[in-house]
Amino acid sequence: MIELYEDERLDYLLAENLKIIQSPTVFAFSLDAVLLARFAYIPIQKGNIIDLCSGNGVVPLLLSSKTKAAITGVEIQERLYQMAVRSIQYNRLEDRIRMIHGDLKEITETVGYGKFDVVTCNPPYFASPSPHVINENQYLAIARHEILCSLEDVIRVSSQLLRQGGKAAFVHRPERLLDILTLMRQYRLEPKRLRFVYPKSGKEANTILVEGTKNGNAGLKTLPPLFVYDENNEYTPEIREILYGEQ
Amino acid sequence: MIELYEDERLDYLLAENLKIIQSPTVFAFSLDAVLLARFAYIPIQKGNIIDLCSGNGVVPLLLSSKTKAAITGVEIQERLYQMAVRSIQYNRLEDRIRMIHGDLKEITETVGYGKFDVVTCNPPYFASPSPHVINENQYLAIARHEILCSLEDVIRVSSQLLRQGGKAAFVHRPERLLDILTLMRQYRLEPKRLRFVYPKSGKEANTILVEGTKNGNAGLKTLPPLFVYDENNEYTPEIREILYGEQ
Repeated sequence: MIELYEDERLDYLLAENLKIIQSPTVFAFSLDAVLLARFAYIPIQKGNIIDLCSGNGVVPLLLSSKTKAAITGVEIQERLYQMAVRSIQYNRLEDRIRMIHGDLKEITETVGYGKFDVVTCNPPYFASPSPHVINENQYLAIARHEILCSLEDVIRVSSQLLRQGGKAAFVHRPERLLDILTLMRQYRLEPKRLRFVYPKSGKEANTILVEGTKNGNAGLKTLPPLFVYDENNEYTPEIREILYGEQ
Repeated sequence: MIELYEDERLDYLLAENLKIIQSPTVFAFSLDAVLLARFAYIPIQKGNIIDLCSGNGVVPLLLSSKTKAAITGVEIQERLYQMAVRSIQYNRLEDRIRMIHGDLKEITETVGYGKFDVVTCNPPYFASPSPHVINENQYLAIARHEILCSLEDVIRVSSQLLRQGGKAAFVHRPERLLDILTLMRQYRLEPKRLRFVYPKSGKEANTILVEGTKNGNAGLKTLPPLFVYDENNEYTPEIREILYGEQ
C-alpha cells in the first residue's frame, strides 16, 4: 500500500527488484545515478554510507541491494525527501536506509565528522543561475543547478564526512573535470579512479565517474571507457547488465 | 649520404615518407610521439611551432609533413640533438626545421616570449631520481626521467613561449593527469581537449593526450577513446592509419 501524489508513478528500479516513486515534473532518476551506484566501491558486510543530493532516494535504494551497511540519504527539497521516504517504506528498507531532510552544508552538525566509510553524490551539474533556469520548475531547477549548493560545497562536506581512507564517489560532466579534480585534491579527497562515459563509439564523453580517497596518496587510474549505446543505438551489453541485470 | 654512428640505424618514419636516425641505446621514438604529432592542432599554411624535449627530432619531422609552418626543435642532449640534425639534413628539411641544442628552462632567452602558435612536448614521464635510474644509461635516463627538467618546467616554459590563444599539446601518463591539468591552469594554459589512449578494450588507459589554450576560457572536451590493439592483439584501424597511412 503506497500513497502516490499528483503525477507521481511507481517505477521498477530495474535490476534491483525494487520500486521507486518518480514524477516527471518533480524528479525522475537518470542513468547517471545508476552508473554512480554501480561505480562506487561499497563495503558488503558492514559500514556507514551517506548519499548527498539524494533526490527521490535512487542511489540509497540501489546501494541497499549490494550491501548490508547502514545507508543515509540527505535531500534538501522536502517534496523529494518525502518521495524517498515513501519509496523506502514501500520496499521495507526503513531499517537499512535513513533519509534526512536537510541542507548538506550543515549536515555534519547532524551526523558528525569523519563517521562515514563512503560518500556518494550525484550533484547539480550546472552553474547557477542561468537565464533558462527561470523557465524550469523549482524542483528540477534545484536538482540540476548549483542553486542551493555548489560543487565546492559537495566536495568539502564529503571530505568532512569521511573517515581517513574513506571513499567519495561523484558523477558529473566532463566539462567540470578539472574543477572536480582540483577541488578533490584541495579538500584532501585524492582522486584515485576515473571513468569516462561515452554516449557511443566515436563521440566525446558526456559523463564522468570519479572516486577519491580521504587523505589518500596520489595515483589516478583511468578505467576502461563505458559506452552507453552501440552502433544500432541500442544499449551496450555492459549498460544492459547494469540496468537490467542481463549477462 | 648520411653518417651513422655506433648502433644507430636509419628507420622509416612510416606514414610520412621520411627517414629518421634511431638507436636502441641512445634514443628511439615511441608510439607516444607519433600520437602527439597527430593529436596536436597544427596550422597548415604558416605559423611558428616549437617542440620541446625533441629527442631525435621525431615530432618536428612528423609535423613537417602536415604543415608549411616554421618548426623549431629543442633538445638538451647533444648526442640526440646531433641525431636530429642529421635526420633533418637527410630528409632535406633544413629550411623547415631548426634544431636548438639547449635547455628548455632557458630557451625563452634564445627564442623570445609569446612568439609561437603551437608548442608540443613529449616530456620525461617519470619523477627523478628513482633507484632503477642508476641502471639505465644516461641518454635514456634523461629522456625518461625528470632529471634535467620537471613537468612544471615544461608547462611553465610552454606557456611563456605561446602567444595569446596559442596551443600547447602534451603526451603523458594518466597517473599524472591531475598534476598536468593543475599546472596547465596555473600557468594559464587552459585545458581544452583531452584524449585517453587505452592499450586495448577493457584495459585501463596508459597514455593521455592533452591540449591547452594560452589564456583560453574553461571548457574541457574529452575526445573518443583511442584503442591501440584489438582483441587479436593487432593494431586497430585508427592506429594503422596513424602509423602507416592505411585507411
